[in-house]
Amino acid sequence: MSLTHIFNVEMTCEGCSGAVERVLNRLKGQGVENISISLPEQKVAVTSTLSADQLLEVIKKTGKKTTYVGIQ
Amino acid sequence: MSLTHIFNVEMTCEGCSGAVERVLNRLKGQGVENISISLPEQKVAVTSTLSADQLLEVIKKTGKKTTYVGIQ
Repeated sequence: MSLTHIFNVEMTCEGCSGAVERVLNRLKGQGVENISISLPEQKVAVTSTLSADQLLEVIKKTGKKTTYVGIQ
Repeated sequence: MSLTHIFNVEMTCEGCSGAVERVLNRLKGQGVENISISLPEQKVAVTSTLSADQLLEVIKKTGKKTTYVGIQ
């Protein structure tokens, strides 16, 4: 079952949001279905069959400070 | 033996360079000895016993576009 998980991610420019998008895009077809990023709101929404913890680990690999917000 | 490897990394703000630094800092004591980042020059210097390929993989996990330049 897919859920849309929301994360707060510290992103300060389009280079930051682009990096997060790129890392999540690599998981398309491996559990990640859709990604939506708002730089002004510092929010990343990921529709996925992966768990929130799994997605958090992926986002943390970017080196960005991130916290889990919840299910949309 | 430690070598200082230079990488070109696309970083557009201090959030970008901070993320790269954070990811490499996690490997301190696990083969990474020193990190030096120049945001204006888009350069990352890593003194390490790890190979250039291993370091490149780590930097790529940030989602930043990166290429290997060579040994300092």
